[in-house]
Amino acid sequence: MKSLQKYFPILIWGADYSRKTLANDVMVACIVTVMLIPQSLAYALLAGLPMQVGLYASMAPLILYAIFGTSRALAVGPVAVVSLMTAVAVANVATPGTPEYLTAAIALAVISGLMLLLMGFLRLGFLANFLSHPVISGFITASGIQIATGQLAPILGIKAHGESFVGIVHSMLPNLTNANLYTAVMGMVSLAFLFWSRKGLKPLLCWLGLSLRSADLAAKVGPVLTIAITTLVTWHFGLADYGVSIVGVVPDGLPRLSIPGFDADLWAALLVPALLIAVVGYVESVSVALTLAAKKRQRIDPDQELIALGAANIGAGLSGGFPVTGGLSRSVVNFEAGAETPAAGAFTALGIALAALLLTPLLFFLPKATLAAIIIVAVVSLVDLATFKQVWHYSKADGAAMASTIVMTLIQGVEVGLLVGVGVSIFLHLYKTSKPHVAVVGQIPGTMHFRNVERHQVVTSPDIVSLRVDASFYFPNARFLEDTINNAVAANPAVKHVILECPAVNTVDATALESLREINHRLRDGGITLHLSEVKGPIMDQLKRSTFLDELTGKVHLTQFDAVASIDPELARRTLAAE
Amino acid sequence: MKSLQKYFPILIWGADYSRKTLANDVMVACIVTVMLIPQSLAYALLAGLPMQVGLYASMAPLILYAIFGTSRALAVGPVAVVSLMTAVAVANVATPGTPEYLTAAIALAVISGLMLLLMGFLRLGFLANFLSHPVISGFITASGIQIATGQLAPILGIKAHGESFVGIVHSMLPNLTNANLYTAVMGMVSLAFLFWSRKGLKPLLCWLGLSLRSADLAAKVGPVLTIAITTLVTWHFGLADYGVSIVGVVPDGLPRLSIPGFDADLWAALLVPALLIAVVGYVESVSVALTLAAKKRQRIDPDQELIALGAANIGAGLSGGFPVTGGLSRSVVNFEAGAETPAAGAFTALGIALAALLLTPLLFFLPKATLAAIIIVAVVSLVDLATFKQVWHYSKADGAAMASTIVMTLIQGVEVGLLVGVGVSIFLHLYKTSKPHVAVVGQIPGTMHFRNVERHQVVTSPDIVSLRVDASFYFPNARFLEDTINNAVAANPAVKHVILECPAVNTVDATALESLREINHRLRDGGITLHLSEVKGPIMDQLKRSTFLDELTGKVHLTQFDAVASIDPELARRTLAAE
Repeated sequence: MKSLQKYFPILIWGADYSRKTLANDVMVACIVTVMLIPQSLAYALLAGLPMQVGLYASMAPLILYAIFGTSRALAVGPVAVVSLMTAVAVANVATPGTPEYLTAAIALAVISGLMLLLMGFLRLGFLANFLSHPVISGFITASGIQIATGQLAPILGIKAHGESFVGIVHSMLPNLTNANLYTAVMGMVSLAFLFWSRKGLKPLLCWLGLSLRSADLAAKVGPVLTIAITTLVTWHFGLADYGVSIVGVVPDGLPRLSIPGFDADLWAALLVPALLIAVVGYVESVSVALTLAAKKRQRIDPDQELIALGAANIGAGLSGGFPVTGGLSRSVVNFEAGAETPAAGAFTALGIALAALLLTPLLFFLPKATLAAIIIVAVVSLVDLATFKQVWHYSKADGAAMASTIVMTLIQGVEVGLLVGVGVSIFLHLYKTSKPHVAVVGQIPGTMHFRNVERHQVVTSPDIVSLRVDASFYFPNARFLEDTINNAVAANPAVKHVILECPAVNTVDATALESLREINHRLRDGGITLHLSEVKGPIMDQLKRSTFLDELTGKVHLTQFDAVASIDPELARRTLAAE
Repeated sequence: MKSLQKYFPILIWGADYSRKTLANDVMVACIVTVMLIPQSLAYALLAGLPMQVGLYASMAPLILYAIFGTSRALAVGPVAVVSLMTAVAVANVATPGTPEYLTAAIALAVISGLMLLLMGFLRLGFLANFLSHPVISGFITASGIQIATGQLAPILGIKAHGESFVGIVHSMLPNLTNANLYTAVMGMVSLAFLFWSRKGLKPLLCWLGLSLRSADLAAKVGPVLTIAITTLVTWHFGLADYGVSIVGVVPDGLPRLSIPGFDADLWAALLVPALLIAVVGYVESVSVALTLAAKKRQRIDPDQELIALGAANIGAGLSGGFPVTGGLSRSVVNFEAGAETPAAGAFTALGIALAALLLTPLLFFLPKATLAAIIIVAVVSLVDLATFKQVWHYSKADGAAMASTIVMTLIQGVEVGLLVGVGVSIFLHLYKTSKPHVAVVGQIPGTMHFRNVERHQVVTSPDIVSLRVDASFYFPNARFLEDTINNAVAANPAVKHVILECPAVNTVDATALESLREINHRLRDGGITLHLSEVKGPIMDQLKRSTFLDELTGKVHLTQFDAVASIDPELARRTLAAE
């Protein structure tokens, strides 16, 4: 039962489900549905897919997440960054607008869903850790810039294509003179209204008498209002005849469940993008879920989240949708509207289904420029250059990883940008640890504690060099270790003992073991004894599996104080007694 | 002057060069020359190049290394593993036997020489550290197996091709029935004699009255003896007419210096193999140089070695040779014969030049099977599976990296094998640090020292959870850190203080900083104070560049003892006083 609850969290909250919770969840679902319809349509457009696919991707995934997910407030569905990644990945294997394009998008959802499931069952969630905070943050910023730039084209009524910001700008510039005046005016006004509605609508509604919380939620209807007004205007003035691009026929009805055919070539071509989408979607979703859960002291199970998102994506694929994940803005609305259980998500799915059945004919005259404006307003909040400044100030290495992610994403597109970012983070980490900080340490008077001679008032013995190497001993720094100890000894001809204080040594790999052996032999040949101190339990266990401890000329001491006291007991005790 | 000496070590030893040293170096050069001629011819064969190219690669590089190198005993020239890597790289861009093939091999020497120079000037020698001990050892073992297997073909008088052990075996098996009897007998006898001469010739020579040292050196003439005898036999019995493949015309004379034309496509195609050859050659050479230098307490400057090997390879390319590096066996002979300065290498180059001028006609009837036998005997000592057993016993991660290097090299060839090995080492390191060892620590009675509660008899306070995380805080383990602290607190409801003891924390990157912030906020919301202790200087400097220290609910203490004493002074002092 316990493990069944682990894999089906619905059994936990479903057991206590009351009529009151039901009423609350239904109310929340209405609000989220109104917000989700425009987003679903817009992100389908962003992914280069027919509008109804956006609605399809907002039904089955929500129900599946309600069954498997551990977050009470997460709302899954199409989101900006994943939609962009979908567009890029699918455009590589099919032409936009063709049935093959749709097939590939569906396959992408299924593949990344399967990968998430697999990662969940094999406990491979740690893979997501390789997307460091600066890389994911830089990636989202660059994606936001790219999406917003790309959507300027439908707002101006021109064509643009390209897999990166630079590519899009390059393809847009020569077309700027072909902008359609009616489209441009409609797009700009929508954009202005949407931006205003984010900040100005709430005070206005408060002033009109709504409570603060209601006003906050009602202000989220800005996009729906924009859709309604621009659709009416376009219909009334027949703007389609003046070159305003409209949505046209959106097939109504519910998606048909079907198992997509397996095409080995297609799947092979989509493997890498599917993995990237799975990991990026997961990281985005889990961080939203953790943030919201922390506010109510609820728990998120990251491994179960992999399974839930995997199920949601497979569900999206089987019901004709494209890749989905937990989105920030809609989850926040869900949370603030008071969603108490994931059932709110399931009811939202019902709301979307009703919309798909009844509302699609009303969308015929909806200008694509309006959807583009909705996307732009949604993504500008993703662009966060303040974080870059902070990160750069804190750590140049992290700043460099973030900058290269942003720059490479803008120039080469999402996949290259992400991979370069991960590569740069890993490389810079290895580079840093290959030249670690090394401190010569001495005893702080009055204590048994040893610290850097350059930072603290300490006592040292002329016979002894005590070194604290602030790194694990492993292959990138094994040779550095040899050089450091050789140089330290060469600089102190009087030295008879070298003590390596090892509290910072978390690993000694086979390469470093060879180096320690070499160091021990060379010091021995020079008449110098090598000691170790504060070697941690797991490291001792490992060293015992080699012959190093037998070869070691000195001893392994529990503490640095013990090591010094065993060589120069007089000095050690005098220093301890001093004030 | 100092810096001139740094870049031209010849100025250091050249200043004290005496007539006695000269006489000694010339004697050493004679011995090494006799050994180097067969090796040079054999490795040219291994690389798929005309024989004289092997001689060319043993002249200019030796002179250049004598000028720039810091090792007194290193002998550079063609070596087995690099010759194999050359053959594989060049066969990808040209057909063996064509002038384009030679051009590509020459370009490869120049490119990897330039890369080594660049790495020397930019102090990028640390790149070589990424080849961990298990990876390079596994790579050399697998290369040895591949080379020995490939050379069975000329010994049997059959054809074989393939870029990996598996490929070679696959191409050889169907041809086994075509083996040429005369070639096979000649090859097998040569092989048997060479193996015997390594072990049996020395005792025989001692028995004949030579001193131990002379016998040791004279035993190295085994290959020359084999060449002389098999050449005579082949000539006398006209074995070429019976299908024994012979070397034929080797053009005599010295190489013409020429600057190879720059072909952008060719260079682009050779970039990755050139880098791998540069790094592998450098690692092999430096480890030989360090081993020999340690025996005489001499110093090696690893950065200058990059420059010296770079110059040697560029010299090889400009004089019609192929990639070279410092070889183990010839350097050991050089060392044991008593080489006192790198001038011995320059004199060896003269010896090789004389051979190129005078001896090549004598090589006409030399059977290729003899050269193959020389190669096999040279490389079987590279195959070292005992190291694998040791490494696997010491560390499963290192063992896995070594095993995957060996297996992938055997299956996919040298380049894939090496890259997979490096990738696996890095991945396993990151994986290990993503789930670090965490110890709950307590005070050891009678000391100020804190250790793992599970390994030592320690005293703890019910109010305090003291955790020592044995890892740097960085992106692969940032989320693990959050989970660990959440779980530790959840398991101890009485806890009011969490102390993170940080002696093992060598970095806190931007991702981990975010996690620490989150941890601090969540503990604060639960009424728990977060303290840090034993944070190292460089980490404090970095944390001060963020707002974290202002947000921290507790304090940063110099020692873990101070931290506990500030919360529960009574307990800390009582424990310190206890025995």
